[in-house]
Amino acid sequence: MAYFDSASSAPLHPVAHEALRAALDEGWADPARLYREGRRARLLLDAARETAAEAVGCRPDELVFTPSGTYAVHAGMAGALAGRRRVGSHVVVSAVEHSSVLHAGHTRVTDRDGAAVTEVAVDRTGAVSPDTYAAALRADTALACLQSANHEVGTVQPVAAVAEVCRAAGVPLLVDAAQSLGWGPVDGGWSLLTASAHKWGGPAGVGLLAVRKGVRFAPQGPVDERESGRVPGFGNLPAIVAAAASLRAVRAEAADEAARLRVLVDRIRARVPELVPDVEVVGDPVRRLPHLVTFSCLYVDGETLLHELDRADFSVSSGSSCTSSTLTPSHVLRAMGVLSEGNVRVSLPSGTAGAEVDRFLEVLPGVVARVRETLGAPVVRTESAGADGAPSLVVDALGKLCPIPVIELAKVIGDVPVGGTVTVLSDDEAARLDIPAWCEMRGHEYGGRDGTSFLVRRLV
Amino acid sequence: MAYFDSASSAPLHPVAHEALRAALDEGWADPARLYREGRRARLLLDAARETAAEAVGCRPDELVFTPSGTYAVHAGMAGALAGRRRVGSHVVVSAVEHSSVLHAGHTRVTDRDGAAVTEVAVDRTGAVSPDTYAAALRADTALACLQSANHEVGTVQPVAAVAEVCRAAGVPLLVDAAQSLGWGPVDGGWSLLTASAHKWGGPAGVGLLAVRKGVRFAPQGPVDERESGRVPGFGNLPAIVAAAASLRAVRAEAADEAARLRVLVDRIRARVPELVPDVEVVGDPVRRLPHLVTFSCLYVDGETLLHELDRADFSVSSGSSCTSSTLTPSHVLRAMGVLSEGNVRVSLPSGTAGAEVDRFLEVLPGVVARVRETLGAPVVRTESAGADGAPSLVVDALGKLCPIPVIELAKVIGDVPVGGTVTVLSDDEAARLDIPAWCEMRGHEYGGRDGTSFLVRRLV
Repeated sequence: MAYFDSASSAPLHPVAHEALRAALDEGWADPARLYREGRRARLLLDAARETAAEAVGCRPDELVFTPSGTYAVHAGMAGALAGRRRVGSHVVVSAVEHSSVLHAGHTRVTDRDGAAVTEVAVDRTGAVSPDTYAAALRADTALACLQSANHEVGTVQPVAAVAEVCRAAGVPLLVDAAQSLGWGPVDGGWSLLTASAHKWGGPAGVGLLAVRKGVRFAPQGPVDERESGRVPGFGNLPAIVAAAASLRAVRAEAADEAARLRVLVDRIRARVPELVPDVEVVGDPVRRLPHLVTFSCLYVDGETLLHELDRADFSVSSGSSCTSSTLTPSHVLRAMGVLSEGNVRVSLPSGTAGAEVDRFLEVLPGVVARVRETLGAPVVRTESAGADGAPSLVVDALGKLCPIPVIELAKVIGDVPVGGTVTVLSDDEAARLDIPAWCEMRGHEYGGRDGTSFLVRRLV
Repeated sequence: MAYFDSASSAPLHPVAHEALRAALDEGWADPARLYREGRRARLLLDAARETAAEAVGCRPDELVFTPSGTYAVHAGMAGALAGRRRVGSHVVVSAVEHSSVLHAGHTRVTDRDGAAVTEVAVDRTGAVSPDTYAAALRADTALACLQSANHEVGTVQPVAAVAEVCRAAGVPLLVDAAQSLGWGPVDGGWSLLTASAHKWGGPAGVGLLAVRKGVRFAPQGPVDERESGRVPGFGNLPAIVAAAASLRAVRAEAADEAARLRVLVDRIRARVPELVPDVEVVGDPVRRLPHLVTFSCLYVDGETLLHELDRADFSVSSGSSCTSSTLTPSHVLRAMGVLSEGNVRVSLPSGTAGAEVDRFLEVLPGVVARVRETLGAPVVRTESAGADGAPSLVVDALGKLCPIPVIELAKVIGDVPVGGTVTVLSDDEAARLDIPAWCEMRGHEYGGRDGTSFLVRRLV
């Protein structure tokens, strides 16, 4: 069984396992108590905080432990926004942030007084530019947020440069380092930083929130004395101990492991397009996380692809619309403007063997071919004369979900002459992304959308 | 080493240890994922929810897991209040609720539009009466909260009767069952229920929130799909599995263990006042938790007592002001109007041996005597004539902390004739509770307080 989805949750690192086991025996008491068991718990908590702070690159009293990375993001954003209430309530985020950041931003909009969120666009690799960030900052901007690296496509963001832009504007920057903290500290002058232990091989139930001294911060929600008043409730000390110990352990292995996994990911990046026709590998090929690669396969539906890979003993995830309960494609892929259908994210856990990657490359082409072969839903096809007199076709894919509209488009494009048009009727959300992406991949002209009607002109 | 503070945090139950270990191997993946590891995690999560729901006495889809009991209380109160926003924002709580309930109530007052909290008084045993609750409910009451049993003195509250009163008024009742859920389900028609796994021997990092079908509930904070949209963030599945398994295990042992511990606690309740002079045992002697007993020792400061008991290998906690960072006595003892100085809470973990309790009873009298002996701060003492011409004394204990004001009062009461008065000058917060409590214990008349001046009339 090859688990290739460490970006969702990494298997528990052996050091985390050991530390957790030890801390279950030593660290179950309340660290706020004065008796022996409490003092012992306090020592464990203090040591864990020092270890984590060293890995983050902050002072121990700047760091608190939270119940999850999402909690750290929510508490960090809420506290930073409240701390700067007098400045304003405008929030700047990248369009490809984790949903916890986007949801926390948008909660401000609905729950408070006229707050607004600006989503900074990304380029086709998924990266923001410092200039775009600078342009988004306003006099009433209370907080800017930027991930250290993207969780779906692995692209590393220019955090240090954006931090500089924010510093110049006097706006604090919150960096969501969930995907990268195991690989190394986040450079640059960030103001707040969040992370999640189960992403680096630590246990579930532990997030980190670091708030630099001098950053205005007003914890929200009911008062509680624990974790500097920033995280209410009895802490999960055994898991915190395991999180800190495993962070130190993965950091010690990070340079070697990153170099090794980078080679494996490069192999996937290079070989998949050679082995599988009609594939787009997305994300920055160089400025990227070492262990993560994402590609999309035309004419394939993500859910079936995931099931077939699972049957072949590979666990991966997908940003395709058809694998999500909302039937909308990943907001990351949408913001990048890249193909979303047949999307596969491979994120290799530490220790992944090269042979497992080779087996994946062996299995993938057959799996994709089989899924493509079985797809072929019937559609109504009508010939008519185009507005410019050129031969044209209309493909009615209304009510059909991804990847059917693109499949039907591809089937008929050869039936119109070069210069001719195909109009695809589709009410599938994914079509807005995938029809233009298909045009770009196949060298045709995308003529735009009018309601549920997509115009494509054959060029080759 | 005898750990007698299970009401703070219980040592991990062996079943929790085993289940956690197993779930660390089986349940680290994301239960929302479609591949094998995700499906396995989902099965574990579903089974844990069914187990926990059965123990709570609710439907599995009425129960979500939270990162702590405090989180469950905060999320439960916030969601219930938001769900009844149109009715009003008045909250009724007992005066002896856990701080998480009181803080969440008071957050409403400060953060929102004119919400108000009514704290229902308790009797000298710490119990509320359904009539008082009924009187506190108003047309704009959005939520009532009542603990199943008090965490400091063990008194069991009349939840079923209060639930009936709330039902009649159409007000939902949230029951904080943190201290009692391991002993049995909460009877009566509660609307919401919260609990905390580490109180019953489960791991830290898991709380429960049950919301009955039909109760209006609007989750607050940023949107997230997990746990029915009520608890954002990646769940702590191994701990959840261990929490559910240990809840089932402690329930299976509960009847026998409760009977056994009840005998040990009765022994403490009976013997401590015989062995130690000037002690008040507080809380209801019958309607109480099986494992918990609290008493207060005159002329002793709680922190020194705790340290001395710790040196004698007993871990207990205290509601005395001197053991708290705020220098105010426990709000529970204050609401009950009982002595707070020299306060000791003994809460026996499951499996506590009778011999350990006997050793505690052997050790305690000597410890209290030694602490009393070493206490004796100098105070200014002035003789003067009382307003009614009776001999009187003034004891200046300004700037002195608990238990000094009461010690100095006790030292001089014999120096005035019966009918004479002692005026104690004290700016210690605890004196407001402890001087009247001392009067009641010693049969003197408490004449009231004027600023920092407390009047005591000798009667015996």
